[in-house]
Amino acid sequence: MPRLARYLPILDWGRAYSGTALTNDLVAAGIVTIMLIPQSLAYAMLAGLPPEVGLYASILPIVAYALFGTSRALAVGPVAVISLMTLTAASSVAPPGSAEFIAAALVLALLSGLILLLMGVLKLGFLANLLSHPVVSGFITASGIIIATSQLKAIFGISASGEAMPELVETLLANLPDTNLPTLVIGVLSTAFLFWVRKGLKPVLIRAGLQPRPADLVAKAGPIAAVAAATLAVVVFDLERQGVRVVGSIPQNLPPLTVPLFDPRLWQQLAIPALLLSIIGFVESVSVAQTLAAKKRQRIDPDQELIGLGAANVAASFSGGYPVTGGFARSVVNFDAGAETPAAGAFTAVGIAIAALFLTPLLYALPLATLAATIIVAVLSLVDLKTPRTIWRYSRADFAAMAATIAVTLLLGVEPGVIAGVGLSLALYLWRSSRPHAAIVGRVPETGHFRNVKRHKVLTDPCVLTIRIDESLTYLNARWLEEFVLETVADYPEAKHLVLMASAVNSIDASALESLEAINHRLADGGIKLHLSEVKGPVMDRLQRSSFLEELSGEVFLSQDEAFSSLIKRSENEVPPQRDDLWLARGLI
Amino acid sequence: MPRLARYLPILDWGRAYSGTALTNDLVAAGIVTIMLIPQSLAYAMLAGLPPEVGLYASILPIVAYALFGTSRALAVGPVAVISLMTLTAASSVAPPGSAEFIAAALVLALLSGLILLLMGVLKLGFLANLLSHPVVSGFITASGIIIATSQLKAIFGISASGEAMPELVETLLANLPDTNLPTLVIGVLSTAFLFWVRKGLKPVLIRAGLQPRPADLVAKAGPIAAVAAATLAVVVFDLERQGVRVVGSIPQNLPPLTVPLFDPRLWQQLAIPALLLSIIGFVESVSVAQTLAAKKRQRIDPDQELIGLGAANVAASFSGGYPVTGGFARSVVNFDAGAETPAAGAFTAVGIAIAALFLTPLLYALPLATLAATIIVAVLSLVDLKTPRTIWRYSRADFAAMAATIAVTLLLGVEPGVIAGVGLSLALYLWRSSRPHAAIVGRVPETGHFRNVKRHKVLTDPCVLTIRIDESLTYLNARWLEEFVLETVADYPEAKHLVLMASAVNSIDASALESLEAINHRLADGGIKLHLSEVKGPVMDRLQRSSFLEELSGEVFLSQDEAFSSLIKRSENEVPPQRDDLWLARGLI
Repeated sequence: MPRLARYLPILDWGRAYSGTALTNDLVAAGIVTIMLIPQSLAYAMLAGLPPEVGLYASILPIVAYALFGTSRALAVGPVAVISLMTLTAASSVAPPGSAEFIAAALVLALLSGLILLLMGVLKLGFLANLLSHPVVSGFITASGIIIATSQLKAIFGISASGEAMPELVETLLANLPDTNLPTLVIGVLSTAFLFWVRKGLKPVLIRAGLQPRPADLVAKAGPIAAVAAATLAVVVFDLERQGVRVVGSIPQNLPPLTVPLFDPRLWQQLAIPALLLSIIGFVESVSVAQTLAAKKRQRIDPDQELIGLGAANVAASFSGGYPVTGGFARSVVNFDAGAETPAAGAFTAVGIAIAALFLTPLLYALPLATLAATIIVAVLSLVDLKTPRTIWRYSRADFAAMAATIAVTLLLGVEPGVIAGVGLSLALYLWRSSRPHAAIVGRVPETGHFRNVKRHKVLTDPCVLTIRIDESLTYLNARWLEEFVLETVADYPEAKHLVLMASAVNSIDASALESLEAINHRLADGGIKLHLSEVKGPVMDRLQRSSFLEELSGEVFLSQDEAFSSLIKRSENEVPPQRDDLWLARGLI
Repeated sequence: MPRLARYLPILDWGRAYSGTALTNDLVAAGIVTIMLIPQSLAYAMLAGLPPEVGLYASILPIVAYALFGTSRALAVGPVAVISLMTLTAASSVAPPGSAEFIAAALVLALLSGLILLLMGVLKLGFLANLLSHPVVSGFITASGIIIATSQLKAIFGISASGEAMPELVETLLANLPDTNLPTLVIGVLSTAFLFWVRKGLKPVLIRAGLQPRPADLVAKAGPIAAVAAATLAVVVFDLERQGVRVVGSIPQNLPPLTVPLFDPRLWQQLAIPALLLSIIGFVESVSVAQTLAAKKRQRIDPDQELIGLGAANVAASFSGGYPVTGGFARSVVNFDAGAETPAAGAFTAVGIAIAALFLTPLLYALPLATLAATIIVAVLSLVDLKTPRTIWRYSRADFAAMAATIAVTLLLGVEPGVIAGVGLSLALYLWRSSRPHAAIVGRVPETGHFRNVKRHKVLTDPCVLTIRIDESLTYLNARWLEEFVLETVADYPEAKHLVLMASAVNSIDASALESLEAINHRLADGGIKLHLSEVKGPVMDRLQRSSFLEELSGEVFLSQDEAFSSLIKRSENEVPPQRDDLWLARGLI
């Protein structure tokens, strides 16, 4: 791939752009636009921002991603979890809805964009690895629960606040007596209708004679019907006067040019939230993009994705938006609707821009309860109760990380939740790395294979002890190595030769080398020779750069079989160990 | 070992205590006491504390360690590096020498004690693994340089301050014109004499007819001669009036009972420094204790050492002391002088207590320049210039961690230095873990061995591709695994079978399992079957708890040899791959 095209993927697909692709992209853009309008408003309000901010965040960021991103189907814009994280982060600076709050959201988008760009340029995408699958899954589930709960306030027409469940539930219950009945009716009906649209509409349409694919797409656009019906109900029955809260007037204009505040103190306050939000957004977006790319046997480049998402967020910060990323639902709709190139995204942007210019008056009477219903229905599909069960069966450690993420997110909020998940995963990983698996092995009779004496019937020799180390030797397990080897030797007082079988040792760092040297000297003091077997090529190359091999009391054998046979033969010819040697070996612990 | 004796090792050695042991312990205690008196004063003053605090820190903490520690020779008390860290930490709260500063040192000792006890009870000793050998070595070297430089102020009789080299050197140079000549003479003579004592006295004593061991011990006590001579010179020539600064009057009493302040804000400020100081102290102390224990084929228990050191620090905080740990020099003297049990420590405590009660008036005229000389001579032996060269040759990554630790410690101070070393080691480790080694392997002709196609002449088959993964599969490399496997397959368009040879895979976590499932499905879409070979017992046990093995498109083979042979046979009987399959395989990237 030419260098420039690597950083500007549009040069790649733009060259081969055809009439068919144009038609397909236009159709997909139309469908996504219809779906995005209510969703953008809803997510902006979830983030504590005026509704139009959601529309603005769906225009230029999409264009920026279309220029720099590598996924052909990813639809970038406001998403639920990032909106919740924006609310949390910006709330720490100013009350939601205030001018300072909106300014903080712009700064968050800018910081997030810069962080993503930096990670992309420095190829730091691997940092996203720190978020394990269980942690991400747990975090998304818990965020979905928090978001759905927070939207109940709009369904009941009451107020509630809080970044985590305890406060949310408490304020909801406290304000329950203020419930506005017409709002509740609209909210419940909208929610029920949307749930039905999700599951029940498609079969009805198919029975009515539609093909499955168009039926599916019509069903996806179903929320528009709820929006229209609810808006009409408010106008016809003059429900606004009865206390039903509506979207209200939205300015009719294209995204404004905004310049994020350069306030070092504010940047510092928002740096960590922006980092967390960027990484969560990146991980989510890449997994959506990878899933869709695999279906068409296309490829995405994670480092370039960082640049695409970074550009999208910078664009959001300069056009009155807030942090964005690739959304799952909208990307799937885009893909299913037949989007072939990122141009579909650009056309969507035009669609939303037209909506921002001309359609906003139609949204005046849209009840907030209906928007809340669209959010609730969307996020409840994020709540995944199957994965925790699968993970519990497979790995308790992974389950612990997931459970901690869910619990901390629910109880303390999204940022502590992510940090707890990453921290616990890392701590468990380091703990496991610090006590690796190792086994005393013996020869499987009649073969050259060596297996764990605890799991197999194998031949051993009292004079020749073999320990297979099942991990790379690093500073994290160097101390363990010393303790394990010297303790094991103490249990085999007749041993004259110790073989470390290194078939699973992929590297030895400087700390572990120092430990091997210490082991070599201490064993020699006890009259035991240290040997190595099955040392891998790269490990051996490196050992030759140290003085360890010269100091080694024993030898390095190519195969364990050779080591075992020749050492047994040798020890038979040697004099039996002295009493004193025995004592030494035992005393070595 | 009975449960109680595990936590109170004194029950173990106390029962077998004999007359010979008593004599040996008393002799060792006498020698260590003589050595400790000037050292304790010097280190307390290095830490910015009144000299008597050093004596107090050498009384009760030693007794506490004797009760709970597992090393028989470790001598606990003030040490150079921990004194420097105390100075740095307490200076951030109050100016050195002030009452608040002394109070902060007590709180540091208490926090450090509590942290160590907690780590001991929770068996968190493995956290000390985060400090790799290169990082510790670099940190000690850099600290030694800082300490030696800071002591030049006392040698020249001027003032200087700063936690890191730039400020230290700058203030030293600025104040150089104020040099006090008599002080400089005493300082230079003391330093020269002490260096000579260290290297040259022992041969002289041996030539005078002493046995090597007593000669060594007398040489170790040499500093006392310097102390006595310098004190005498000050008195005889009335140098105090000429501006030579002396220790001055030290209160004549046993350690006072002190109660560390309980001030949440202060505790919060000192928590991180206390943590760093505790871990550095623990790592240093354990490595001294392990070295000495190995020489007598004794054993120490690192988790119990945490409790011993924790108790010593709590004792320091309640008896007017400051943070302590096991010191290298004093422990070696204790060991060489023949200490047999921790009772030697208790006798040392009695010796120091007697000194604090009766000998302090003799120390009045001891010049600070001589104390500085004892520190300089002691810490310069910590500066290790050989290890960096060895490490450079062996591993650039380890060298980078060490160089960063040295540079940051020298330029910014001890706390940033430790954090930079630990952070960089961890980042390099995680980075390496995220892109492990893997190789395409083939059969070594006429054998059942399989080796890297790039390093060996081996047999391969275009239809049967084998990838050996040289690392455990974890969330850190799960994403790499997907990318690597799918890219490799794309390079071998004729492949119908992919074997993952798992001989070096010691575990597969939930994230990696999910990636394996994704690989399985994507390969199946491309008409390629996924097989595993040489899966280890524990890994297989765990895989059976998931649905992966049921969904696997291929098989699990016990040996790679079997996999290779039977898959080649099978693919010869199959129809050749369709054009379309080929395209799929190629398109899979």
